[in-house]
Amino acid sequence: MTDSKKTLVVDPLDLAAGNGLMNRRLFLNSALVGGATLATGGSAFAQEAIVGEGQEEWTLMPGDDLPEYGDVSRYEKGRVKRFVSEPVGLATAALGARTPLHMLHGTITPSGLHFEVTHHGIPDIDPDRHQLVIHGMVKQPFKWGVEQLENYPTVSRQYFLECSGNTRVNWAEPKPDQNFMYMTHGLVSGSEWTGVPLSTLLDECGVSPDAKWVIAEGGDSGSLARSIPIDKALDDTMVAIYQNGERLRPSQGYPMRILAPGFEGNISVKWVRSLHVTDQPVMSRFETSKYTDKLHDGKSLQFSLEMDVKSVITRPSNAVSLEKKGMYEITGLAWSGRGKVAKVEVSADGGRTWADAVLEPPIQSKMLTRFRIPWMWEGRPSILQSRATDEFGRVQPSRAALMAARGKQAYYHYHAIHSWSVNARGAIRHVYA
Amino acid sequence: MTDSKKTLVVDPLDLAAGNGLMNRRLFLNSALVGGATLATGGSAFAQEAIVGEGQEEWTLMPGDDLPEYGDVSRYEKGRVKRFVSEPVGLATAALGARTPLHMLHGTITPSGLHFEVTHHGIPDIDPDRHQLVIHGMVKQPFKWGVEQLENYPTVSRQYFLECSGNTRVNWAEPKPDQNFMYMTHGLVSGSEWTGVPLSTLLDECGVSPDAKWVIAEGGDSGSLARSIPIDKALDDTMVAIYQNGERLRPSQGYPMRILAPGFEGNISVKWVRSLHVTDQPVMSRFETSKYTDKLHDGKSLQFSLEMDVKSVITRPSNAVSLEKKGMYEITGLAWSGRGKVAKVEVSADGGRTWADAVLEPPIQSKMLTRFRIPWMWEGRPSILQSRATDEFGRVQPSRAALMAARGKQAYYHYHAIHSWSVNARGAIRHVYA
Repeated sequence: MTDSKKTLVVDPLDLAAGNGLMNRRLFLNSALVGGATLATGGSAFAQEAIVGEGQEEWTLMPGDDLPEYGDVSRYEKGRVKRFVSEPVGLATAALGARTPLHMLHGTITPSGLHFEVTHHGIPDIDPDRHQLVIHGMVKQPFKWGVEQLENYPTVSRQYFLECSGNTRVNWAEPKPDQNFMYMTHGLVSGSEWTGVPLSTLLDECGVSPDAKWVIAEGGDSGSLARSIPIDKALDDTMVAIYQNGERLRPSQGYPMRILAPGFEGNISVKWVRSLHVTDQPVMSRFETSKYTDKLHDGKSLQFSLEMDVKSVITRPSNAVSLEKKGMYEITGLAWSGRGKVAKVEVSADGGRTWADAVLEPPIQSKMLTRFRIPWMWEGRPSILQSRATDEFGRVQPSRAALMAARGKQAYYHYHAIHSWSVNARGAIRHVYA
Repeated sequence: MTDSKKTLVVDPLDLAAGNGLMNRRLFLNSALVGGATLATGGSAFAQEAIVGEGQEEWTLMPGDDLPEYGDVSRYEKGRVKRFVSEPVGLATAALGARTPLHMLHGTITPSGLHFEVTHHGIPDIDPDRHQLVIHGMVKQPFKWGVEQLENYPTVSRQYFLECSGNTRVNWAEPKPDQNFMYMTHGLVSGSEWTGVPLSTLLDECGVSPDAKWVIAEGGDSGSLARSIPIDKALDDTMVAIYQNGERLRPSQGYPMRILAPGFEGNISVKWVRSLHVTDQPVMSRFETSKYTDKLHDGKSLQFSLEMDVKSVITRPSNAVSLEKKGMYEITGLAWSGRGKVAKVEVSADGGRTWADAVLEPPIQSKMLTRFRIPWMWEGRPSILQSRATDEFGRVQPSRAALMAARGKQAYYHYHAIHSWSVNARGAIRHVYA
């Protein structure tokens, strides 16, 4: 319970780091504890004093009927995914539809706005005719339709998915593209996934002790195939059939997909129809000519599957201009492919000083974590950054450190600290800092 | 890690309660540990041995383009809400659209399938013209548009919402309606809500120490009004502006609504435009002629706001017939308006014996919790039940106990144990047991 007599505080003792970052306890529930109001006697935020009220027309007539499947408001139709074609030949073209993280909040991405990358388009699959087969190095191959999987033990877990090409543009020199979060961070989303543990199905088939890999193949026209290490297949990988409560949507793998938590997105093969248990990887196009990491010496890393620790400020960001001096919330998302986010630090002075942000519960393994911290913008040019640390002590690197380690030939797995500059007029642009 | 050589078990030592309820460890991740396969040498579940494979037509041509806002599969268009009009006069009519819990999984309800009850239809609100005013017993009234609220400190939390009329039909004698989960349990859903703590806004206005209530009024044509106790308003109540990551949908209160976690649904006033701080409740139609609880002596309880501890098996349920003997998952949802679910017990023999179900993490306060337990159906008539206990030791009552306590004049807050009968042919119906 808050003492309802207390009002908004901006006390110097509440400063947590340079350039206006405030103590995060200001945001703990029942929120603004402490002393006096602002010197103006008004609010530090942006609301208006009351000057009178009209009666809007929608209050004067009965409203619309209920929909059987609700849609977004007609005023929100601009909050959609944006398409970006990769600049490569048709044969390997990936069409990506990117999540507008800068227009969203919380940690769950609506299924209709979950990012998608497809190499062969979205198949229109009849669920009664689709089957998943497990074969290869097993005692007894089996196959399952989605209705048969419905009788199995399930798990429901919230996980992020991220394409290893997310933030790829930031390996290169600055381009105007990078001002748009669509372009830099639109290939990561979070969902509640429900499915059958893959270990259950593998156990039923009786996997050979010599098995090392499971080759997952999709039912799309290109039969996209990726090799899953057997340890991952028997750990937390599932055959997902529901996303955010309802059956998967076609662009998310309907009627069933692999979900390999924390691994780069395309290991979670959509429309999965075959799991071939083997002792060697398949060496498909998607683990040779694509989704490998070039190093300084011209060699490439293969099977760099686990996603790194990473974070990004989603607000303020390119989508917002700060209209006046005052209090704002800095908020964003952090994640790690290995486990839980342990800490997110925020800087408002380009990394000179840092303050710990609040992490929103529940903090879940291999899921997006929302962070937030109050910020008093005093009208000065500022550089906003976030830096995540996971429970294993992995710290999100600076861009300079990442470039030194991975060089300029890299394409995937960019995860450095992201910087937003705020100019004196409140306009926001991406910068390398 | 699972030992990949192990296969499905049905060992008598794994029985946890009567009539085939299995030890829940069978469902812990990396799932089926233990001894031998079924006597048949095949699977205890329902998959088929492989007899050959075709090449489906969707694998033979490029797939569809990506949508900018993804929709469900054309094969899933039947998974929609169902409408039920309340049998009352037009002036107080509530139109309800009910969530198909029996067709969903996990704990998040897709926003398009969240239940809705409206008394005056859905207003078509222009967010740039909608404002929320706080006035009454405050030092300084203020008003906010949604864009102004966007600059405020936010919280993101997963909460259930339940209409206090949910399961109302079960106060009466059995009717065929009760075989349908739409009818009995379609007025509860779960979401991730993001908004501004109401305490923050109240603190800015400076609430009088004599204030006892906050009257929330909606911007619908009927100006639906409910009285929120000041303690609740200053505790975990928020002004929500996002649901499951995106802006609220019109039928969920766009552009802003109250979200009073754990309280009966219509306290969470949609399209909220006025919060009047007072020292007495407003005594609106919705807290006098409706949403009160008649007792044995003819008197009524008012402001019975906190929802009770409750659970229901969603699968198997009316939507499913068991086609053959074998292993099934019993799964469902449990919740408490006071805090976390501590335990869910399941019975397959009409309450004679009980076994603890697995609760899916994260177990969150005032949110749906998914439970599950394996069950070996041996083809005998069975009665399936679930019984939830919350962290405060409140136990979901039997129907007999609830009827004795609340009598037959009751209408709201039904929360007794729900029973599904399975006959020898595997057909499932609701029964009082």
